[in-house]
This record gives sequence, C-alpha cells and structure tokens, in this order.
Amino acid sequence: MAEILAKALYNFDADVSAGELNFRAGDVLIIVNQDIGDGWWEARDGSHNTGLIPQAYVQLVDPPEPSFPPPPPPMASAPYKENYPYNGYGYQDSGGGRPGVLQHQQQSAEDWDDDWDDDDDDGSSASTGAGSSGAGSIQQELQGGGNFGLSQPNRDSKASISPPSDVSKYGTVKKSFSRFSTFAKAGGDAFLSGQISGNVPESDQIHILDSVDGPVWKPIDSPYTCTISSPKKESKLKGLKSFIAYQLRPSFTNIQVSRRYKHFDWLLLRLEEKFTCIPIPPLPDKAISGRYEEDFIEHRRKQLQRWMNRMVQHPVISQSDVFVHFLTCTDDKKWKQGKRKAEKDEYLGMKFFLTLNTPPNALSMGEVDGRMETFCKFVKNMDDNVRSLLNVCQDNRKKQQNHFKREYKKFGDGFKSLAATFSLDHSHGSRELTSAIEFTGETYNQIGDMFEKQPVKDLEPMMDELFEYKGVLSAFPEVLKLHEGTIGKAKECQRLQQEGKMAESEVQSQLQRADVVSFGTLAEINHFQKERVREYKAMMQNYLTEQISFYSEVCLCPK
Amino acid sequence: MAEILAKALYNFDADVSAGELNFRAGDVLIIVNQDIGDGWWEARDGSHNTGLIPQAYVQLVDPPEPSFPPPPPPMASAPYKENYPYNGYGYQDSGGGRPGVLQHQQQSAEDWDDDWDDDDDDGSSASTGAGSSGAGSIQQELQGGGNFGLSQPNRDSKASISPPSDVSKYGTVKKSFSRFSTFAKAGGDAFLSGQISGNVPESDQIHILDSVDGPVWKPIDSPYTCTISSPKKESKLKGLKSFIAYQLRPSFTNIQVSRRYKHFDWLLLRLEEKFTCIPIPPLPDKAISGRYEEDFIEHRRKQLQRWMNRMVQHPVISQSDVFVHFLTCTDDKKWKQGKRKAEKDEYLGMKFFLTLNTPPNALSMGEVDGRMETFCKFVKNMDDNVRSLLNVCQDNRKKQQNHFKREYKKFGDGFKSLAATFSLDHSHGSRELTSAIEFTGETYNQIGDMFEKQPVKDLEPMMDELFEYKGVLSAFPEVLKLHEGTIGKAKECQRLQQEGKMAESEVQSQLQRADVVSFGTLAEINHFQKERVREYKAMMQNYLTEQISFYSEVCLCPK
Repeated sequence: MAEILAKALYNFDADVSAGELNFRAGDVLIIVNQDIGDGWWEARDGSHNTGLIPQAYVQLVDPPEPSFPPPPPPMASAPYKENYPYNGYGYQDSGGGRPGVLQHQQQSAEDWDDDWDDDDDDGSSASTGAGSSGAGSIQQELQGGGNFGLSQPNRDSKASISPPSDVSKYGTVKKSFSRFSTFAKAGGDAFLSGQISGNVPESDQIHILDSVDGPVWKPIDSPYTCTISSPKKESKLKGLKSFIAYQLRPSFTNIQVSRRYKHFDWLLLRLEEKFTCIPIPPLPDKAISGRYEEDFIEHRRKQLQRWMNRMVQHPVISQSDVFVHFLTCTDDKKWKQGKRKAEKDEYLGMKFFLTLNTPPNALSMGEVDGRMETFCKFVKNMDDNVRSLLNVCQDNRKKQQNHFKREYKKFGDGFKSLAATFSLDHSHGSRELTSAIEFTGETYNQIGDMFEKQPVKDLEPMMDELFEYKGVLSAFPEVLKLHEGTIGKAKECQRLQQEGKMAESEVQSQLQRADVVSFGTLAEINHFQKERVREYKAMMQNYLTEQISFYSEVCLCPK
Repeated sequence: MAEILAKALYNFDADVSAGELNFRAGDVLIIVNQDIGDGWWEARDGSHNTGLIPQAYVQLVDPPEPSFPPPPPPMASAPYKENYPYNGYGYQDSGGGRPGVLQHQQQSAEDWDDDWDDDDDDGSSASTGAGSSGAGSIQQELQGGGNFGLSQPNRDSKASISPPSDVSKYGTVKKSFSRFSTFAKAGGDAFLSGQISGNVPESDQIHILDSVDGPVWKPIDSPYTCTISSPKKESKLKGLKSFIAYQLRPSFTNIQVSRRYKHFDWLLLRLEEKFTCIPIPPLPDKAISGRYEEDFIEHRRKQLQRWMNRMVQHPVISQSDVFVHFLTCTDDKKWKQGKRKAEKDEYLGMKFFLTLNTPPNALSMGEVDGRMETFCKFVKNMDDNVRSLLNVCQDNRKKQQNHFKREYKKFGDGFKSLAATFSLDHSHGSRELTSAIEFTGETYNQIGDMFEKQPVKDLEPMMDELFEYKGVLSAFPEVLKLHEGTIGKAKECQRLQQEGKMAESEVQSQLQRADVVSFGTLAEINHFQKERVREYKAMMQNYLTEQISFYSEVCLCPK
C-alpha cells in the first residue's frame, strides 16, 4: 500500500513532550494515521521521527485547489473526511491544479492504470489528427503519459491558468483579466470570423428550441437510465495487476458492460474537449491508498452513479456518439474503433458550435448581458453557499455523532444511576418510579444512539448532493468565460463598425456566430437551472422528511 | 452595594498582556464582574490592579463547603450560576462551613438585618434558660450577635465538625469516626440512661404509627398549604433601612402575614434545634449583592415557596407550635411572646424524643441495622446522583442555549443564503423551491430559538428540584449519625450485660429508649422516601412532558 504523503505549508514548533512532531514549511511528511481526531494527524518525517501534527498545517500531495485561502488553525472543526467512513477519499476538494511531482512518483509506484496502453497499443498518436484548437494541448498531455486515469478533470487543468476562484475574487466574470485568453485558446477568433466552418450532417446537429425561459436544448425523445453496480476486484497478468471493474447497464440496451475507472476518465476527457459550453462535473477522486476497501469502493460506486445520472439526463451528452459508445460497446475491436473515432472528432472547442441548430431569431445583446451577469453572480454565490452548507453539514455531522450523542448519554447515565440508587428503597410505591426512571435513562441512551446513526439518513445524502454541485459549479466559470470572451469580441466588432473600420455585413455575420455561442450557453444555463430545481427539491424533501421522522421518533421514545 | 469578595485558593501566574491578574493563594480579591464567561471573572486586587481571573481559583467569601474536593481547572464547563439569570445567587453550594471573618466584616457593612434586636430588645439572654444539650451552644452563638439572618443553616455548623462529606468519604456512617461525637453532643448518654426525662402532655406528643413499610409519622388530619407571594421592598427609619417582605398566606387562616428573610432564618434555627431526627433543608442562600434585583427576588420567592411546601407537608413540622406561630401571628406583642416561648422550648436535642409516642412493640436490632445501612448508602448515592445530574443539567442548559442553538442557526443561515442565491433565478418553477428553502431556513432559525428557550420549561424546574434535594440530603447525615451513635451505645449496653457489668432491667430500659430514636428516625426515613417518590415522579413527568412537547413542536415546524 502506497504511503500518504503531505507537504508542510507552515513551520510548526512542536511540543515534543506532548508527542508532537517538529517540521518546517516545505518538509515532506509521511502521514501514518489520519484517525487521531480534533484536527491532528500522526506523521513521520525524513529522519524517522514520528509524532502528532496539526492537519491544517500540511497538504496532501494531490493538493486540492492550492490557490485557495489558507486553512483555519488546528482548533477549528475537522474537515468532513476526518470521520467519513471512506477514509477521506470521497470528499477531497477537487478544484484545479495538476498533481505535483510527488504525486507522480507515488503514482508510478502503483500498478493502477499503467496498463492503459495495453488496450491501445495500435498507435494512439494517430488520434491527435483532427484535435482542433484548445483540445490539442489536452491531447498532447494525454499522450505524454503519466497522468492516465487521474481524476483531475481536464477542464480543471485549463482552470489552473484562470482558476474558478477568479470568479470568487472578481465577483463576476466581467472583470476577469483572463476572459479573452479562454476565448482565444478555444479558437474564438477563428470561429467568429468564420475561418473555421463545416457542414454538419443533420443527424449530427444539436437542436436548440425557444421556450418561455429562453433557449433550451431539445428534450430527449427517449430518456434512459444507466445503473452502475457490482464493483468487482478483477486481476490480469496472472494476478500481478488488479483493478476494480464496474458493471454498467443502460436501460435502452439492458446489456451489461464492464468499465474501469480509467475508462470513465477517458470519457470525461472526451466530453470536456467536445462540449465547450457544457460544464462537465469531475469524477469522484481516485484513491491514493486503501482503494480496495469495501466502504471506499461502494462509496465511489455511488458517486459514479450520481455522475452517470447527471450525464444520462443531459439532452446533449446522453445522445452523443462517444457517450453511447461508452455505454454500449461490448466488443474489444469495436471498442478500439469507437475510441479512435471519438479521439478524432472534428467538432471540438469552438467547432462544437458549428453543430448547433439554433432558432432563427437574433438575440438581444442587452438581454444576454443581463442574464449572463445575473447567472455569473448566481454561480459565484451558489458556489459559496454550497461550500458553506457543506461545512455546516460536516461540522454538524461530527457534533451529532459526538457532542449531541454524549449530551443525551449523560442524561441517560444520570437517570440510570439515579434509578440504581432508588432501587435500594423497597418501600411501597417506590418501584414504579424506579423502573420509569430506569426506562427514561435507557431512552436517553437510545436517543444518543439515534443521533449517531441519523446522519446517514439525512446529512450524508445532502452532503453527497452538495459535494456533487461543488464539482458542477467549479466547471461553470470556464464556460462562462468563453461566452464572455465571445460577447466581448462581438462588441468590439460593433465598435469597429461605428468607427467605420469594419463592414456591416462582416459585423452581422460575426454577431450571428456570437449568437450561436449565446444560444448554446443559455440553453445549458436553462438546463442547469431546471435540474437544480428538481434536484434541490428532492434533496430538501429527503432531508426534511428524515428530520421529521427523526424527531417524531425522539418524541415517541419516552412514551 | 456591597462588594463581592473572594479568597484565592491557589497561586495564579497571569498572562498580564492578555488582561489577566496575578495573585497568590490567600489573597483577597474584589470581584467586579462575574459575567465574563468561560470560567473567567474580572477582579481587583488590594493594589487596585484589575484583570481577569479563573473563577475556579478563588472562593467567594461565604464559602460553600470548603472541605470539598478542589474545583476543576478553568477550561471545564462553567458552573450553573454563570448563565443563570439570577446572577448565581440561587445555586451556590450550601454545604457546611460558617462564614469567615471577611464575611462578618462585609455583613457589618450591610444594613441588612442589623435591626433584629429592635424586635427583641427585652433581653433575649433570658431565652437561653431552658436551651438544653446540643442547642445551648447554638443559642449562645445566636446571642453572640453578628450572624443573624445568615442563610447557613445551623445544622451545618455542627456539620463542620463532622461534615456531610464524611458519608461520601467513608461510604456509610458506620465507619465515621465522629459517630459518637454527634450523639454525645446531643446529650445521647443522658437520654439513654434516663437522666433526662419529662412528662410531655398528650397534646404535645408526636405519634408514630406502624405501617407496611415500618414506622410512620401519624398523618396530618387537616393538611394545609401556604403561599408566599408579592415580595416587596419595604423600608424603615425614613428609608435608611430597606428590606424585602414576603407575604405568607396559610390556607387554614387565609390571613396574610408579612415575614422577612431573617424571620425565616430564625424559624430554621428553631426547627433545627428541635427536630433532632428530621433533616431540615437549608433556606435559599442570602444575596451578597444585587439582592433587590427583580429576577433574584422572584427566584428566591420561588425557592422559599418550595422550602415552605416541604415544611407544610411534613406531618411533624407543619403541626408544631413554633411553625404555626410563624405562619399565623400578626400581632407584634404576641409575636414576641411566641418567639420567646419557642426559644425557651425544653424539648430540644435528645429531649425531642421524649415527645414521641411510639408503637408498643420493640424493634429488631438486626432489622434496624439493615435498614439504616441501606439508607445510608441510599443517601450517599443519591447525593452523588443528584449532584452529577445537576452538573449534567447545567452543562446541557448551557449547550442548548449556545452550541445547539448555534448549530440550528447555522443550518438556518445556510438555507437562507442558498434561497437568496436561488431567488436570482426567475425561471419557470424555480420560485416555489426558493421560497420553500427560505421557509426551511426560517424554521431552523426558529428551532435554534426554541432550543434557547426550552430550558426554562424542562431543565430549570428539574434543576430546582435537584438543587432542593441537594439541601435535604446534606442535612441527613447528622440525623443518621445521631441514630448510629444511639445504636452503638445500645449495643455497648448489651455487651456490658453479657459481661455481667450491667443489670438486665437497666439494659432493657436503655434499649427501649434507643428504640424511640429508631422509631423517630425510621418514621422520618419513610416520610422522606414517600415524598421522594411523589416529587421525583412529578419532576420526571414534567420533564418528559415538556421534552415530548418540545420535539413535537420541532417536528411540526418544517410542515
């Protein structure tokens, strides 16, 4: 089992007599125990000294969002992962940032996914061929090797140049200095000026319709589902290599296919490079160690299922060739053919907008501006809300299972001790009271246990939902920036026209193409909002139903 | 307003830069603010330096139970009084220990109760006359002046020689080294040997009957109640002196009488010196300062009412001349006559047992031993239970009003922020969810407030009951020791008879007299147990009813 490594963020002057471990900022430590509690971990340094360290002073070496503000001091409430049964792998922050050098070293020590090329030994370099603007660098990285199967979503690697936290920093995307860079990288100029074009066959076109809320993706004709079940440990090379295989069964074929995490990761890359105006949420994090523990495997299965649900419900993604190929292909040879085809897909980056079939009317620039400004604020605020609610839940979950439980147990024990004393008195009429108090004591102990068990029913499903949204929201800023860049360019054209530096027909044609980007982005925003309403309604309903049933049970207890 | 003084128990090396105040064990400090929280007070030393001090390091100068184990360090949960609206006067520990020198100094600086002799200027020294064994010294102390109106019950002054904590230390009274001293002081030898005697008129006799549970006090023929209402600030000497007058109205006369705290205190002394086998609970503590604050006055009225309820329900006390005099006398002259009569009462200490009219049968020494041993254990354990439950309540009360409330508020605020963000989206179907989440946020804030307000309904009544029992239980060990001494002496007589050193008739007569003490003590134990069952039943019922109604309300909230 690989070691968990962490890098010290700050100096720590330890109280060695209390079992603490000294370290300097920048030191690399081996984390030997994350179950100490109260914000402490046990660690070993390079000189083989072992001791306690404040968790908040170090960063695991696949660091989540290094650009985020410094963590709170160690007396603050411990993060969710501390008590989560999945050893913390489930809820690591999954923002931007590629894994560091240590991560790669660690990765190479693993047998995980290093057999990718085995599946693909027929020269995948050919697949870069048609990879157009913006996706090219990703392709290169992909072939460059070493990061196969990493859970960091591809879009996040772009985000490390202009990270999602920009949105937080600048309030709205408008003020982001990088709004043009995203646009430029994606090939925005070439698209708007009409330099890239293509005749997309009707069958490959994606339709956008008008609705009361503005542009929407054409609804799915035949919605389907896909269950992910039975994660199994499998092995190959006579047991030298082992991996987890997930069984997928889409409802429209009802034929089971087996997929590994690396296949999901490959799919994610395809979706990210293709669907330029659709935020693709990251996959659940990959395990660093202990990845075969049952709890972890089952938890990741659930997270993958959530990810899958979101994808199959998406009117564009669920109908795309690459996605259907992923869900249905059972034949090795066909799998490789489909894989190569997807990797050669021409309509990536800004070219994706060539595939959009939009309503004929032009959009009002002012209206689009207004909606986008509101939505940028929405994304920023919701991201804050979700993170803060997630913290509240994490904290509350810990409190319920520790403090709250303990409070009720103290009453339980207090009443039971009193009953034990009262049982010394055998006088007339005393026994009834004694056993009532004994029963009350038992009841409060039970209520304590109920508090311990309750989070599984109400808090954890809510946390899963919030956590998933954290991922979706982190993928949105790139989409918004691309649109922002497009609109900026369009406005520049209008200005040039006013100055007589650009012909009206040229300007009109650029504005038309900008409208396509707006149509796509607004359709996706509308889709997001519709799903958000549906999912948060379900989340709140489940939470409140469970809360009511919990407190009802508490009420019933003493009766 | 008099200053609150405290004596340092330990050295404290302060962090002066953090506003703390240095002091050495034994220093006397003036407490200037008890509302700092987290176990800290603000204090001023003799050199007029002011700063924060750990509350647990000092002791207020009317020190509760100085022989108790040292208090926990300052990070431990704050005591009940810290947050109690009555500024902590309600729940000071009321165990043994006379007030120290400082207390007396402070007392003399007060105008409180120093007019006692005004009521009694006709030479109360005459009243020592008939004060028999055990009570004599108390009488002397009483006339010695300076402690009039102090809330420390008289029995506690005896307890400081053999304090209640002996029972805790030695498990049962059996092993207490002081068992004979209590007995001797009360005049036990003289009583058992028949040297003190008297012909108590039938009308003054107290009857003990047989029951299934053993000896019981003859029930009250006409039970009555007495309400204490309208504590009023009154003044005399043209407003130079002010005091609180409580209005008492016993149901059997329905005539209101006005009594001051010092009158209650005088009554307490009378009851303690007279009813040798009846534990008289202490009065609520007297205020040191701020005694005219409304909260405090009302709280003390409630505590006095509880004390009064216990007294009027007692079959012996409620029928006694001194008690009836206290409840009924409205005439100044008659008051003084009755007062003198009570102070001259002959049947105090062991002589009280001369007034008992017991069943004719002899008691089995073995049986009495067994019951007493069990009951000693009962008292010790219940005392522990009550104190520990009181701690649990105090702690829980604080947690509910702070931590629990905060937890629910955090959810409330989290949901409300989310709703505020969601309100940015005006798309179809979004508003319903937004207002539902807004409502949920409001609801969780309300639940937070409910947690804050709930203790008044369930925890505080329970704490009042527990606190009162702490007083009753603290008065029991003296009663039990007296009985233990009596039995010890009786056994000695039996031994002397076996050794031929004492005549059988003499032994029988001593055993008979010892039986009277056992009858009285057992009758009181049975009374205590009956009341205990009744009162704890009511306490638990109220607590659980309120708890159920609380959680039901929580359930109804989100609907």
